[in-house]
Amino acid sequence: MKRPIITLLTDFGQSDYYVGAMKGVILGICPEAHLVDITHEIAPYQIRQAAWMLDQVWRCFPPGTVHLAVVDPGVGSERKAILAEAAGHFWVAPDNGLLTSVLSQTGAATVREITASQYFRHPVSRTFHGRDVFAPVAAHLSSGVPPDAFGPLLSVPQCLPDMQPVQIAEAEWEGEVLSTDHFGNIVTSFDAATFGWVADVPFELLLGGEPILQYDHYYQSMHGGRLYLTTGSSGYLEVAAYQSHAASLAGVSPRSRVRLRRCGERSQTVKTSTGT
Amino acid sequence: MKRPIITLLTDFGQSDYYVGAMKGVILGICPEAHLVDITHEIAPYQIRQAAWMLDQVWRCFPPGTVHLAVVDPGVGSERKAILAEAAGHFWVAPDNGLLTSVLSQTGAATVREITASQYFRHPVSRTFHGRDVFAPVAAHLSSGVPPDAFGPLLSVPQCLPDMQPVQIAEAEWEGEVLSTDHFGNIVTSFDAATFGWVADVPFELLLGGEPILQYDHYYQSMHGGRLYLTTGSSGYLEVAAYQSHAASLAGVSPRSRVRLRRCGERSQTVKTSTGT
Amino acid sequence: MKRPIITLLTDFGQSDYYVGAMKGVILGICPEAHLVDITHEIAPYQIRQAAWMLDQVWRCFPPGTVHLAVVDPGVGSERKAILAEAAGHFWVAPDNGLLTSVLSQTGAATVREITASQYFRHPVSRTFHGRDVFAPVAAHLSSGVPPDAFGPLLSVPQCLPDMQPVQIAEAEWEGEVLSTDHFGNIVTSFDAATFGWVADVPFELLLGGEPILQYDHYYQSMHGGRLYLTTGSSGYLEVAAYQSHAASLAGVSPRSRVRLRRCGERSQTVKTSTGT
Repeated sequence: MKRPIITLLTDFGQSDYYVGAMKGVILGICPEAHLVDITHEIAPYQIRQAAWMLDQVWRCFPPGTVHLAVVDPGVGSERKAILAEAAGHFWVAPDNGLLTSVLSQTGAATVREITASQYFRHPVSRTFHGRDVFAPVAAHLSSGVPPDAFGPLLSVPQCLPDMQPVQIAEAEWEGEVLSTDHFGNIVTSFDAATFGWVADVPFELLLGGEPILQYDHYYQSMHGGRLYLTTGSSGYLEVAAYQSHAASLAGVSPRSRVRLRRCGERSQTVKTSTGT
Repeated sequence: MKRPIITLLTDFGQSDYYVGAMKGVILGICPEAHLVDITHEIAPYQIRQAAWMLDQVWRCFPPGTVHLAVVDPGVGSERKAILAEAAGHFWVAPDNGLLTSVLSQTGAATVREITASQYFRHPVSRTFHGRDVFAPVAAHLSSGVPPDAFGPLLSVPQCLPDMQPVQIAEAEWEGEVLSTDHFGNIVTSFDAATFGWVADVPFELLLGGEPILQYDHYYQSMHGGRLYLTTGSSGYLEVAAYQSHAASLAGVSPRSRVRLRRCGERSQTVKTSTGT
Repeated sequence: MKRPIITLLTDFGQSDYYVGAMKGVILGICPEAHLVDITHEIAPYQIRQAAWMLDQVWRCFPPGTVHLAVVDPGVGSERKAILAEAAGHFWVAPDNGLLTSVLSQTGAATVREITASQYFRHPVSRTFHGRDVFAPVAAHLSSGVPPDAFGPLLSVPQCLPDMQPVQIAEAEWEGEVLSTDHFGNIVTSFDAATFGWVADVPFELLLGGEPILQYDHYYQSMHGGRLYLTTGSSGYLEVAAYQSHAASLAGVSPRSRVRLRRCGERSQTVKTSTGT
């Protein structure tokens, strides 16, 4: 008998009792749940950052995992609560775009609006649906209540604007900074599957001051104090610096724009702009 | 067979090994324990803040839960260690006022002084009773050792001064800031059961600069940059600002004084003071 | 049937999904694992600090525990991965000195190089062996794969320089600051077993400005604003101040040098230098 796994990702921080309250509610309903914190340090209300992170982490968990995500500036308003199912995983979250990346990556997903208030904790407060709606729903789901018991299908969940790079010239693309991590690594929206040629072909990456021209496979072979492009563990190109905080060196933050030019074919466009 | 739940609340922070050491000790005694962190970010030695938080969170957990709380500036001195039982829950803590709110809210509690040193980890250090006294006692209790095995009844545990609002005029009360949370919400000591009339009757709340005159049920309907009174998920009135840090805007911190005036009856007192 | 315990200690911080990813990988392989965070707030790349902490915490856990430690600036390079076994405990870590203190304290240890890539998560990224190498190896080990299945014996694992105090005069020793904790306590490398005489014999401890001349057994009996030597819960002498941040008062940080002089015998050396 496997213990059901419930992951938690919020912007609640760790100095209050809020995450503990959610866990208490879950364990009251589903005592055998295995609770795993992803992070509670999403910047307050930053749905986009959370959406990206949710898509990174679920693949590391076994099928059947329930992912509980609460970044919820609209709590108490008319925004819906949703339950999504895809690739054998489940997500319980507010309907505010938080599942955008997950749903676009997993393909065929079943999304339901959560309306079955008999699974809520009562009275439901107006300001803490994490405790009163999302946690108990995740717990009942983990205890074996079937997904369709929670509410009707929802055909069009809320989505955030696309995060994929846009081609802006023959050999030039514009993307964005998806995340800057604890070490200062800058995760760009250039996915390694499409842009992995940077390991072999001359390129120029622009994100602030000096262009970045060098690629390396791992940190220790980088020269100190310089920025390199590398392939991050998330499958996206990252800018890193050996034992330095690349994001501080480059002066970027999430949502900053990034340009990537392919210089290997010596196209007119690229040659000219290199000179500027 | 249900796994016993042990919650942990301390001022130990998360950068040291102290919380891990406590968990190791617990699992050595009670391997099936389900450990749930409430927070370890209580400001160092702030017993009052911790006392309030302990009272908030226990109701979310099922009966039988053991709540382990260590904010313990008097470690190694003559202060006692206590085990309290109320409403089917258990608390293990230093006898320094940490359980003040819990004991005043739960009513009839059984409090014991922990003296049975056979349940301690030896040698007992003078500076880390979390690891050597409180953790092993919580673990043995969770493993089935009956409460009365840990020591004799204690009739008068240490208590902090009262946190309840005081009426200072016909329609005016003085309370305090109990907590400011990660989002900047300011939790006041005005409980919603007694002071819930603010949703319906004109009022004036004073806590710093401009008086707060408006109440709203949830965050998203608030206008940006302005302070509102709302009913927090903890059952107390809170001051909040939509996607802003109300505590910074108002310049308050825990223990700050707050005044609430009922203006609905247009009492002489209130009218006059509104003009100041 | 006991659930296997896996502890986690990293420099990953808690704002990214990295720790969550490791836990997901572990639970996919060993669903019954009991995961215990020690800390993820080791300062980035600070192997020495982590090495000390690893040695502090393992003794609190029951035999059979697997300790997973990832502070890994050399990830992706030729540095080895190792599995150590001593005193009935296991450690999985990069071979970069992280286990120095553990191995020197536990005595006879069996250390293996981890080479059996069938236990890795594939594809193995160049920048996140925590997820792709160390976590799955710890999980397979906890699931019952015998240690010798992971690779051949390694006779000389990497070690950091010695951290033990050096005698520099008849009654004078030089040590270092091993750690400064959340409360500001300064843990020195003077172990209480050897230097416990400070409780009984006049001494002088130099670590910054004024010499420290007083010893006390616990915090509450200290006078505010002054530095005292005490015996920390880790078995080392610590410098503390009652409800104050000793490390800030003294202006020291890990690796700072500390001198201890025994004044009890009124040796010439000590007398002279006391006068300076």
